[in-house]
Amino acid sequence: MQPMSELRTVEWTNGRVRMIDQTKLPYKFVYVSYKNYREIARAIKEMVVRGAPAIGVAAAMGIALAADSSHAKTKQQLISELGAAAVVLRKSRPTAWNLFWAIDRILQVARNAAGEPKKIASRVVEESLKIAEEDIEANKRIGEHGAALLNDGDKVLTHCNTGTLATVSYGTALAPIRTAIKQGKRLQVIATETRPRLQGAKLTTYELLRDRIPVTLIVDGAVGYVMNKGLVNKAIVGADRVTKKFVANKVGTYLIALAAQANEIPFYVAAPTSTFDLRSNHSEVQIEERNAQEVTHIGGKRIVPKGVKVFNPAFDVTPVELVEGFITEKGVIRADMVRAGVLGT
Amino acid sequence: MQPMSELRTVEWTNGRVRMIDQTKLPYKFVYVSYKNYREIARAIKEMVVRGAPAIGVAAAMGIALAADSSHAKTKQQLISELGAAAVVLRKSRPTAWNLFWAIDRILQVARNAAGEPKKIASRVVEESLKIAEEDIEANKRIGEHGAALLNDGDKVLTHCNTGTLATVSYGTALAPIRTAIKQGKRLQVIATETRPRLQGAKLTTYELLRDRIPVTLIVDGAVGYVMNKGLVNKAIVGADRVTKKFVANKVGTYLIALAAQANEIPFYVAAPTSTFDLRSNHSEVQIEERNAQEVTHIGGKRIVPKGVKVFNPAFDVTPVELVEGFITEKGVIRADMVRAGVLGT
Repeated sequence: MQPMSELRTVEWTNGRVRMIDQTKLPYKFVYVSYKNYREIARAIKEMVVRGAPAIGVAAAMGIALAADSSHAKTKQQLISELGAAAVVLRKSRPTAWNLFWAIDRILQVARNAAGEPKKIASRVVEESLKIAEEDIEANKRIGEHGAALLNDGDKVLTHCNTGTLATVSYGTALAPIRTAIKQGKRLQVIATETRPRLQGAKLTTYELLRDRIPVTLIVDGAVGYVMNKGLVNKAIVGADRVTKKFVANKVGTYLIALAAQANEIPFYVAAPTSTFDLRSNHSEVQIEERNAQEVTHIGGKRIVPKGVKVFNPAFDVTPVELVEGFITEKGVIRADMVRAGVLGT
Repeated sequence: MQPMSELRTVEWTNGRVRMIDQTKLPYKFVYVSYKNYREIARAIKEMVVRGAPAIGVAAAMGIALAADSSHAKTKQQLISELGAAAVVLRKSRPTAWNLFWAIDRILQVARNAAGEPKKIASRVVEESLKIAEEDIEANKRIGEHGAALLNDGDKVLTHCNTGTLATVSYGTALAPIRTAIKQGKRLQVIATETRPRLQGAKLTTYELLRDRIPVTLIVDGAVGYVMNKGLVNKAIVGADRVTKKFVANKVGTYLIALAAQANEIPFYVAAPTSTFDLRSNHSEVQIEERNAQEVTHIGGKRIVPKGVKVFNPAFDVTPVELVEGFITEKGVIRADMVRAGVLGT
């Protein structure tokens, strides 16, 4: 069986976009193939593909599908079609910055391209492939920069899934762990199950078991206890959006950051610079609220009495002050640099 | 349908101990009846009955069953039989102090009683009923003292189940909410689902819906977000054991206390004085680790890949410094009094 770190979560193949269907894991490992941007938008919404970098690439490839299948006669017409696809894709999920970043980038390329519509369409497809390749490259660099922070014997807590399945390949917060292990360091990973969608229980454990990286699963509520008992000495999570003031990431992240602070455990955020939304000074970002059924039902079975009201935010917000360092492809960046809006050269 | 606040979770009926079977809720509301202490010990272990005050009373009634069915010819023989029952009951669950407190109290009564074995046995049964009545009385007082801390319009976060189902009746952390609502205050309850056993999702929502108290369910990881967003302005939890240094309570409690501190939200612990273990200076208490299957399976279905290691502590440990006040039947006690080992008159 191929290691997870060599697979691709999202891939362009013969004018289609192929993805690992993450709603089927860990029970079944299957690929699904999409031929238009509407299917991609639905796949993002339903979390067939999830993880900020992966949905960024998926959205870019969604626009690429629109370009590839276009019969536009003029550049203007093509741009207008791609814009319509972008509107739909932007609405798929509201929080992850990579989605908006990737769509903006690819539309910009289309606008700047010269020549026949077919030629511009090719350029759009190329750009989506380039974004995918850059993602893998960024993750490998995140792995190198982050591995330098990890010592032999470290017990690293992580949240949600931030591995190959959250990116094109290799992962964000799991990248330093993979690289450190390749360097011969012995690490233990403590993975939170990550309710309600159980990405930690279903995806992170799957990835790590498949790559033979030692992993112990805990419920989300046990984070404070494992830190207090010294069962963890570092925490690394991913991010859906980093602003000058806070990190939006999978719900539960803020509690991990608070428990890390209280127990003097360094708390790192690993993310490519495409996750950083530092242009504006906004102190608010839209935090997606998902369906109550994610909480009330597990495996199709109702676990809650009928009539219970549910509040189901998919993300939470952690002040950048609680972050020891942001592990990016450009190196490890301190919170005060992020606050100043500087990501390095 | 009778309100939950009028039901009894554990009850002595015709030489048997009748309990609400909490493993069947919210799907079925059924009673189970036990005739000997071994069945009671198993019911505690398997969480047919759970909640520190409820298992204290269940254990006392377990000893009462042993006394009631005894054919002992001498006091010494009876005491020896009750001692054997106590050994089994003490092993059922290690963390909740009420279990040990109730067993010690009832054995002391047996030792101090004079007369024929039958008479001593009656005295033991009586004492178990007295412990049950005192529990309800204490909870009503907790309700009064705690209600004084709650204002009209408060949004109160709670964890696990601390209602009628965690006690003989009325509850600990839910008691102030019940009483405040009786006083005409309008409250909103935010209940955590409380993985892995989902006592919040299954039991607290059931109790509150049945008693028409407004409740919103969240996943455990969302605690920080709801506090940060101002969706909660008070937190009240129960306790399994309070020492001079910390509160042992359902895993996840420590994270709630940290998030409350970070967001300047008062964090209260509601518990009868029978939960307080202030005699010793120990900084450690045995935190029960339960079966991996509680985490890996939900409703009989495996949600995790085979071969995943699990760490499943049932409780965690919160420093008393994070507690704004301990709501007991004797009044609201400050953390510095608990540290000094003083519970009032």
